[in-house]
Amino acid sequence: MSSSEPATKKQKTQEYVLYYWPGIPGRGEYVRLAFERSGTPYTEFNDGSKLLGILTNPKKVGHPTHFAPPALKLPSGRFISQTPAILNYLAPRLGLAGEKWVKISEKQKEGEKVEVGSEEYEGAEEERSTVNQLVLTALDLCNETHDVHHPVATEDYYEDQKDVSLRRAVSYRKNRLPKFLAHFERVLDCNPENKNGNTYLVGSRTTNADLVLFHVVSGVEFAFPIRVAALRKSGKYDKVFALKERIENEGGIKEYIESGRRQPFSMGLFRHYEELDAEE
Amino acid sequence: MSSSEPATKKQKTQEYVLYYWPGIPGRGEYVRLAFERSGTPYTEFNDGSKLLGILTNPKKVGHPTHFAPPALKLPSGRFISQTPAILNYLAPRLGLAGEKWVKISEKQKEGEKVEVGSEEYEGAEEERSTVNQLVLTALDLCNETHDVHHPVATEDYYEDQKDVSLRRAVSYRKNRLPKFLAHFERVLDCNPENKNGNTYLVGSRTTNADLVLFHVVSGVEFAFPIRVAALRKSGKYDKVFALKERIENEGGIKEYIESGRRQPFSMGLFRHYEELDAEE
Repeated sequence: MSSSEPATKKQKTQEYVLYYWPGIPGRGEYVRLAFERSGTPYTEFNDGSKLLGILTNPKKVGHPTHFAPPALKLPSGRFISQTPAILNYLAPRLGLAGEKWVKISEKQKEGEKVEVGSEEYEGAEEERSTVNQLVLTALDLCNETHDVHHPVATEDYYEDQKDVSLRRAVSYRKNRLPKFLAHFERVLDCNPENKNGNTYLVGSRTTNADLVLFHVVSGVEFAFPIRVAALRKSGKYDKVFALKERIENEGGIKEYIESGRRQPFSMGLFRHYEELDAEE
Repeated sequence: MSSSEPATKKQKTQEYVLYYWPGIPGRGEYVRLAFERSGTPYTEFNDGSKLLGILTNPKKVGHPTHFAPPALKLPSGRFISQTPAILNYLAPRLGLAGEKWVKISEKQKEGEKVEVGSEEYEGAEEERSTVNQLVLTALDLCNETHDVHHPVATEDYYEDQKDVSLRRAVSYRKNRLPKFLAHFERVLDCNPENKNGNTYLVGSRTTNADLVLFHVVSGVEFAFPIRVAALRKSGKYDKVFALKERIENEGGIKEYIESGRRQPFSMGLFRHYEELDAEE
């Protein structure tokens, strides 16, 4: 799953190529999960010494250049960066934008045409936007979790801002984390398709929103095991945790985890510092 | 531009309704700019005492509920929240997703059909994703600017975290702000359509990316006037500032500003605290 040759501008490839840092799941993992769940072939370019040099060079990536990894090289040769933009681009193509887009894809496979602007298309685009919305909120939780260990300056060491991290962790554990979990529990609770006990954020099939929330909750649990244990025990967020367990065992993801290719959390976005964790 | 009656679930409207806080431009402004630039009718629901109660109640907004404003009620009755999701939904409909989507819309107006999955459609979707990517990066700068005055806890007063704000402001002024500006200057610089002196982030027409960057740079200039004056004077970001001046004078936006309806920056996302600003 790794390639050593940087692909260059407008050079067409057969596959998607993910450009991301080596050694951590990081934000690249959200893109990987979409590929793994849908069984879509992809390769990775992860030479950390060349990554930024490529992504900020218009001679390598064309226009526009990119602020930071992850970036995805599409089969057309175009690069897209920004995790939510990549996921929203991929969603309808990988069957992860909701039921309505899946139906359009099935029609197309049978040779039927679907017109841009048709009622069917408009409905699918609205559903895709709902998935995008939920992905963005889950990624906001990811960002806030990261900012607990880097509240002052991303370019400085944790140790140099630990005094502030200790303060921010209190607000995170007490207010922010429960607020996000309560939001997602409410969304799962009011999805009419979940009346039978299902745990889909949108409709009755897995979307990017489920995959992203799964990974964020996993990361938060890695970083704050004591706090998450207490929140689990409260029984207030049962559907959120059930969603996490469901995704872990779904086709594509189960195999990915068992393969050992899924990199463990360590010192990336989600970090475990004992002193930042507590029951409340 | 304001409506006192909350629209409810599945109730179809003729127009878009923006749900946002009263009294500040805030994140709602990014949505307003898209409507104003494109001359699209919209109304606002801005009763701050009812806003969260509506957006978090499935009986009012259907599934899913929302984490925070802004939310947009579509003519279909569906609500979408999360600024980048709203903007990405609107972009092709308002002519703000790039040239390729505009061409598709023009064809449709002439009664021609465009098929989902056609080469034309795929190209337009890639361009839309590029716009989305740039919108997301500009909004990241907005978020980081906000976090300077709230680095510890969003729920606490600035005065209670001012000690940390003073530290974070140093990193923001010295590292983060120039990094973002350099990124956008590079993007403007390498756009082949800008060789004639134009300042478009994508292609040769205004997109949501330009509108968002315009507002973010305006907000940063309000919050950090001394630092921005120094960065202007450096001459390193001339295209970014030229983009801001261009948008201020473009059709729709110029009229919006002159109408007095555009709310001034105050104590919202972008805040001016003298002690956080400095030349370097």
